[in-house]
Amino acid sequence: MPADFRQLPSWQTLAKLAGNRRLASRDDELSILEPMSLGGLTVDMAKQLVSAEEWHSLLRLAEESNLQGAIERQFDGTFENRSEGKTVQHVRLRTPLASDEKLNDEVETERERMLDFAEGVRDGSLRGHTGRPISTVVNIGIGGSHLGPQVLVNAFPTSTIDVRFLANIDGLTLERTLRRLDPERTLVIVASKSFSTLEALENAGAVKSWFIERGAEGAIARQFIAVTERLDRAVAMGFSRESCFRLWGWTGGRYSIWSPIGLATAIAFGAPFFRAFLAGARKLDEHFRNADLADNLPIRLALTALWNSEFLDRGVHLVLPYDSRLAEIPTYLQQLELESNGKRVTADGDDIAGHTVPFIWGGEETNGQHAFHQFLLQGTRRFSADFVAVRTAPTRYDSHHRWLLANCFAQSEAMRFGNAPDTPPHRRVPGGTPSTTILFNELDAESIGAFLAMYEQKVFCLGHLWQINSFDQWGVELGKTLAEPIYEALAGSPTASHPATEPLIARIRNPGRD
Amino acid sequence: MPADFRQLPSWQTLAKLAGNRRLASRDDELSILEPMSLGGLTVDMAKQLVSAEEWHSLLRLAEESNLQGAIERQFDGTFENRSEGKTVQHVRLRTPLASDEKLNDEVETERERMLDFAEGVRDGSLRGHTGRPISTVVNIGIGGSHLGPQVLVNAFPTSTIDVRFLANIDGLTLERTLRRLDPERTLVIVASKSFSTLEALENAGAVKSWFIERGAEGAIARQFIAVTERLDRAVAMGFSRESCFRLWGWTGGRYSIWSPIGLATAIAFGAPFFRAFLAGARKLDEHFRNADLADNLPIRLALTALWNSEFLDRGVHLVLPYDSRLAEIPTYLQQLELESNGKRVTADGDDIAGHTVPFIWGGEETNGQHAFHQFLLQGTRRFSADFVAVRTAPTRYDSHHRWLLANCFAQSEAMRFGNAPDTPPHRRVPGGTPSTTILFNELDAESIGAFLAMYEQKVFCLGHLWQINSFDQWGVELGKTLAEPIYEALAGSPTASHPATEPLIARIRNPGRD
Repeated sequence: MPADFRQLPSWQTLAKLAGNRRLASRDDELSILEPMSLGGLTVDMAKQLVSAEEWHSLLRLAEESNLQGAIERQFDGTFENRSEGKTVQHVRLRTPLASDEKLNDEVETERERMLDFAEGVRDGSLRGHTGRPISTVVNIGIGGSHLGPQVLVNAFPTSTIDVRFLANIDGLTLERTLRRLDPERTLVIVASKSFSTLEALENAGAVKSWFIERGAEGAIARQFIAVTERLDRAVAMGFSRESCFRLWGWTGGRYSIWSPIGLATAIAFGAPFFRAFLAGARKLDEHFRNADLADNLPIRLALTALWNSEFLDRGVHLVLPYDSRLAEIPTYLQQLELESNGKRVTADGDDIAGHTVPFIWGGEETNGQHAFHQFLLQGTRRFSADFVAVRTAPTRYDSHHRWLLANCFAQSEAMRFGNAPDTPPHRRVPGGTPSTTILFNELDAESIGAFLAMYEQKVFCLGHLWQINSFDQWGVELGKTLAEPIYEALAGSPTASHPATEPLIARIRNPGRD
Repeated sequence: MPADFRQLPSWQTLAKLAGNRRLASRDDELSILEPMSLGGLTVDMAKQLVSAEEWHSLLRLAEESNLQGAIERQFDGTFENRSEGKTVQHVRLRTPLASDEKLNDEVETERERMLDFAEGVRDGSLRGHTGRPISTVVNIGIGGSHLGPQVLVNAFPTSTIDVRFLANIDGLTLERTLRRLDPERTLVIVASKSFSTLEALENAGAVKSWFIERGAEGAIARQFIAVTERLDRAVAMGFSRESCFRLWGWTGGRYSIWSPIGLATAIAFGAPFFRAFLAGARKLDEHFRNADLADNLPIRLALTALWNSEFLDRGVHLVLPYDSRLAEIPTYLQQLELESNGKRVTADGDDIAGHTVPFIWGGEETNGQHAFHQFLLQGTRRFSADFVAVRTAPTRYDSHHRWLLANCFAQSEAMRFGNAPDTPPHRRVPGGTPSTTILFNELDAESIGAFLAMYEQKVFCLGHLWQINSFDQWGVELGKTLAEPIYEALAGSPTASHPATEPLIARIRNPGRD
């Protein structure tokens, strides 16, 4: 059994330093961390609560826990995901790994096939079954098959293709997705790693029926595309092999944005966009692999996150974008961080004596200021935050953009420094909340690639420090198992249910009065 | 100074009972609370962690703290909001209060004026400046002037009027809102209690310019409507008195959905809808005022919330709707609960020795199951949850709806009861998470009125138990004050800023390399 990192000397020192910090009043202190820029991003940590001594101990923890060794194994392609009997390879989708060069080639070949397809759709050489060009893409998929493409489509309002997402199993969402769809001009992507995801298959079935009801059977063979690990299942369901793109088994859904799951994005923005997106991530990977611990962006994000959540007792972390183009970022990062590091046992199966990842929760621009910032500024709960903004305005409304940025900076200032101690109690804001501000110089394919890879690598570092397996997600299985008999009971079969759920089922089947 | 409720005998007993609960293993226990139905809602608390003894002590706390007296003051119209020198009157917008019958009449008169206007727009007797009927409403307003109407417009996909919301100060959102807008057929509502809200005024100015650029000056007088307390400011800005609807000063934004802030909703769905919405809330109010403590829905919600957050150490509460029509409910309740009870001093200005409201955070249907439920089921953080669903399907996709409900019930079961203790560690789900499930029998105007009023009254009870003023929101002022000089600095003026913010401002003004 490996050493428990919570026993390392540096971990003990950090606990002591955190205790000291609680006693001292250091209200106006600026963090020791200077701003850093890379790949079109500036990461400003001036409002973190980190002194030189604390930072030194955090770096020592990274060393004592041999974070560097874990990073090496990641880039070798030998980092283990033991509970699933796999190695962690998803970085290979954008950055060649040292081992198994043949696999690097396979990945590139499949990527090029996907990008050729996307370009064919864009230039009209690939058309619908009646010969008309494609105008709309419906991306059917949930979780990792949805959130990544959605982040990118939302970030760049330039697509001439109408990309619609169908994730939830919700009839109304389905009807809205199908509204004013032209069966001759719509491409349907069914994205599911296992090709057995309930939501994806039910929605795909309903969309297929919709095409058939409109006499467009001919579209099924030509306009339905599968992205999956289980090519066998897709083919068994009637997809031709040429209509399938491969998702490798070693790619968890939340790490799949770099894979053919990006097909909708590539169709929306083109192959050069997608290549630049991967290049941005690669730039970040190279930095992560080569930079010193102290000047390494993902390591900085991870160590400050550990400091805030573990030592400064902040069980909630907020992601607050101040730009509507980044509105889907909190949801994406929520999945990335929570599904990866929402674990309670180590990779060896031992109980963890303490906490792992905090709640990750997001807001949207100044909306939150008129809704929940009252609570953030004057409530009793502790949290940390990442603010995200873009330097340049996407429209001619420069003043609007300047107000957005001013509010973004003002909120981090209010949260960190509060107002004067002699303010009347009902107006007093104590401050003391640490945050990082991440600025995009321009929002483009490369910078958003770097941004998302930076968070992926942050999550990797935290998984290492907590000694957990960030690459499995066994917790989601239980709900799936429990849902099936409840579905049967709701449909009328005499299935027995849990006594706590029986009254709800009875209420659905027989509403009674009021 | 009134007694600190944390010193009451029942509070002390509850602390002891919570300690006992931590020691005992009561994994399969069902809560003592039987399901209750009212106003088209069923509230099921079987999965709460409440024994008979605990429930008895919670009720005793309600009695010892004289919750009943606070409720009486609310319906008398004499409950105080001291820090703002007002009384709490917003309930009067739907339920006549005992004092000041003249004010009840004034409220009704203004409501009828608003509903007449809405019906006029709907039936075409009120038209745009060129005589064409209105097809689109743009609702400009943020926070309480946005979230309430948005909940209702999203809940009922039946409107023939296209209602668009413009809340954030974001140029791209503005451009999207204006896209394909017909200046002859668009009604613009500018909703701002103070008529000095940055976002509302900047957006209103930009929309006005857009009309003028299109030669539609004539629309300004006829198609721009103000909803505000400050009629004087609206009139000074050029609105005619007839184009203004009144928001009373005693209505906080987060309690204003029942007021003329509902204009967009009334135009979308008609006066009978809006009256039924108020009637549903009134039904809940009558129940709240008259039912026994033990069988009183808002009190049940409040006491279980207090038990979970204060005694069972759950600093996060999730609102999880399983229906796309309810997707905006978490954001609405987040504002309602957090802006009301996100306070750290009592109504007397004393520091609170403990916590007030937990983080309120939401999800959307099964999307969350493929994103953050891994963390909810196997992470280390504690929380409570409200699940919300609708019995009947809104479309012909019955199977989709049944899956939604099955997943909803399965998740609360998984969170509460977990799986067997001998499950392998990486698959083990410990359970123990308390939740309430709220079922709408049908989703209609009356039931959503009852639902929102139920949460309002829950928030009122919690404010009383925490002894805080739920009706002010001084915390939001600081950010506004800090944003102004930053805006000036970003615009190029030599304004001094906080040293922690200077580098960010410099970066915006002079991006430099990379």
